[in-house]
Amino acid sequence: MKKQALERVAGNGLINRRHLLGAGLAGMGMAVSNSVLGADAGNLEIPGWSKQPGPGASAYGGPSRHADHLQRMAGAPNPIYPGGGASRSPLQHLQGTITPNSLHFERHHAGIPDIDPAQHKLVINGLVRQPLVFSYEDLLKYPMVSRVYFLECSGNSGALLRGAQGGTAQSLHGLVSGAEWTGIPLSTLLDEAGVLPEARWIAAVGADAASMGRSVPLGKALDDTMLALFQNGEPVRPGQGYPMRLFNPGWEGNTSVKWLTQIKLTREPVHFRDETSKYTDTLPDRRSLQFTFPMGTKSLITSPSGQMSLPGQGIYKVTGIAWSGSGSIRRVEVSADGGRSWADALIESNQFEKALTRFSIPWEWTGAGAVLQSRATDSAGDIQPTRDSILADKGTISTYHNHCIQSWNVDGAGEVSNVYV
Amino acid sequence: MKKQALERVAGNGLINRRHLLGAGLAGMGMAVSNSVLGADAGNLEIPGWSKQPGPGASAYGGPSRHADHLQRMAGAPNPIYPGGGASRSPLQHLQGTITPNSLHFERHHAGIPDIDPAQHKLVINGLVRQPLVFSYEDLLKYPMVSRVYFLECSGNSGALLRGAQGGTAQSLHGLVSGAEWTGIPLSTLLDEAGVLPEARWIAAVGADAASMGRSVPLGKALDDTMLALFQNGEPVRPGQGYPMRLFNPGWEGNTSVKWLTQIKLTREPVHFRDETSKYTDTLPDRRSLQFTFPMGTKSLITSPSGQMSLPGQGIYKVTGIAWSGSGSIRRVEVSADGGRSWADALIESNQFEKALTRFSIPWEWTGAGAVLQSRATDSAGDIQPTRDSILADKGTISTYHNHCIQSWNVDGAGEVSNVYV
Repeated sequence: MKKQALERVAGNGLINRRHLLGAGLAGMGMAVSNSVLGADAGNLEIPGWSKQPGPGASAYGGPSRHADHLQRMAGAPNPIYPGGGASRSPLQHLQGTITPNSLHFERHHAGIPDIDPAQHKLVINGLVRQPLVFSYEDLLKYPMVSRVYFLECSGNSGALLRGAQGGTAQSLHGLVSGAEWTGIPLSTLLDEAGVLPEARWIAAVGADAASMGRSVPLGKALDDTMLALFQNGEPVRPGQGYPMRLFNPGWEGNTSVKWLTQIKLTREPVHFRDETSKYTDTLPDRRSLQFTFPMGTKSLITSPSGQMSLPGQGIYKVTGIAWSGSGSIRRVEVSADGGRSWADALIESNQFEKALTRFSIPWEWTGAGAVLQSRATDSAGDIQPTRDSILADKGTISTYHNHCIQSWNVDGAGEVSNVYV
Repeated sequence: MKKQALERVAGNGLINRRHLLGAGLAGMGMAVSNSVLGADAGNLEIPGWSKQPGPGASAYGGPSRHADHLQRMAGAPNPIYPGGGASRSPLQHLQGTITPNSLHFERHHAGIPDIDPAQHKLVINGLVRQPLVFSYEDLLKYPMVSRVYFLECSGNSGALLRGAQGGTAQSLHGLVSGAEWTGIPLSTLLDEAGVLPEARWIAAVGADAASMGRSVPLGKALDDTMLALFQNGEPVRPGQGYPMRLFNPGWEGNTSVKWLTQIKLTREPVHFRDETSKYTDTLPDRRSLQFTFPMGTKSLITSPSGQMSLPGQGIYKVTGIAWSGSGSIRRVEVSADGGRSWADALIESNQFEKALTRFSIPWEWTGAGAVLQSRATDSAGDIQPTRDSILADKGTISTYHNHCIQSWNVDGAGEVSNVYV
């Protein structure tokens, strides 16, 4: 097996991202002799599971019992906020760009309503030529569009602006997931109702007990907003808005109103409870920014990440996800020395508009301390900011829309933890 | 609400695919007056699920109880073929292009082995400079690639060549699914082992009790074949080969050997039991074609489809999936008159290489009989054939690789059934 010299591309062990693509560098495989293996590897012990048939095909598949650590992190029920709260995706255990529906993050304001689709109605009214009521069966007849998008809660990563100690990729950043969403372009339904010239906003209301409502500018609603009916091929699940939700690609998750039951065309935003009591960005001078919709250009190293342990010196794969609410990911850089030097990561996946993009880079850990960071640049040229720059701009009264660079410290014992540098 | 004249684009009710995209044609929504609705639709009855909080976030989500018909169709256990058999995806209930992992079709030759990834080994040997043994942990360190691909069993749709009566999209065609597969380009691992010049094939063997083995030409193995470790973001599930499988994009599914434990580089194909007793195409003159790998250019209307009932005259959405093992889908046409006239369908999804593509077209059912068909053309210009042309070419001794046009009959009562025209 040929061994090449490591091409260092940035400080503290980052290696050319192309090196492991066939250059024989990694040497992860244990070299063995054909005589040890025998012509057919017959001298390797045959494991028990190869010796007798296993169970056959089933009606509904599940994960391996060795993968039962793939669970969301859900908060405990809160008696003064019944059904409220969130669950977070186990980002440190996922790869690729799609999140399985069972592991997609949730955020509820009054729990999950148990909706019978045969009884559910969607009303479009307000400033329209003709108010309309749609049944679920009606809506299934429309042409749809299928696109892969990320969804992120505006509060994701907010704890870092408040100086949270410790934490994992999941606990700190797990309010982002990716899926193929299938639904009706909202413009189709609005055109049917006939939007009056004076309409400027839509007011979207959910059928949950919170009557969660958000105002969305008409321009977005006529652009790429969809009425989502399917997620990763199957009907949207109850935790995601069954039987239907609004979906505003790239915008803060709460605007993608779940269990959608009404869209009212209006001149002005409605100032729903949930867009005044929550989801405004209060600045240090106490002015509050409203309707700060797009999620920022962001990336995150998911492995190695908080509370992982590196078992020993050697070559590791640094991998993570990047996304932007304003376009596609053009570039991801990684630093192993806390931002002093940077190297371009390999892009492993498609780079769709407003979707998760997977990156990686090989890294040699020598046993010395290291601070791992990633930094995304999107198709608009926006570069992920540092925490200091966000704190200087926005302070910490509100911690929505935190898209700062995450720093993971690796100490001499290989323990990985969240740090601020 | 404006109503336009229907633009007929082919016989027996097919309508311009752009019509429902905002032209106000569909009229699925019930027109109501603002006075009935009230300014806030307050006169619609508030359903019970909106009146009290529901359950909160959970660690692992599930589908709605109203979607419990989304199940695979699994054959009954067969005592003389323990663990053998298949389960079929509920294509008629899915939308978009991704199949949830729980609903992805399965095909097992000796059931599902219960593999401990910490004990599993992957051997690369044979005509290599240096035989290698990899652990699961080793392999997780490699750069990976994430791509959306279809997977189809070579026996899918075979019953139609044998003249099967009745059936559904699921029972007849459910051995095809779509997913984002993430894994290591196999070329990376082969380069590490060092392929000797005389090698022409790889022999891939699974760790199941069938020792399922397939020979794959080296050219494919060095092209887009991957060692797949993740499916739709999570570790490949036991039914799909946990902890790892081979994945040959576009090729018959059995070559994507599950529970992969050995890749041996060889001069010639091995002629494994499963590539001689099965998976050869025996022609009418009794010659058998071997190694007929790519799956043909194919499409299928998933709705309306067999055993569905149309509740009454009116406009329906005809939708389905198309795919090709040799490229991307360029065009899908639909006929409502048994192939006498055709209209272009709308493409609703991305059109990836070797992946499912979703199409639709609106159709007005007048209550008269109709035969619905779809016909795909791929990026190589290959057009999906008729059943008659496949029967003329290949006969019915073997029924693998059937990619013929499916005909769904709609009778005067709106009952949909599989027919041969």
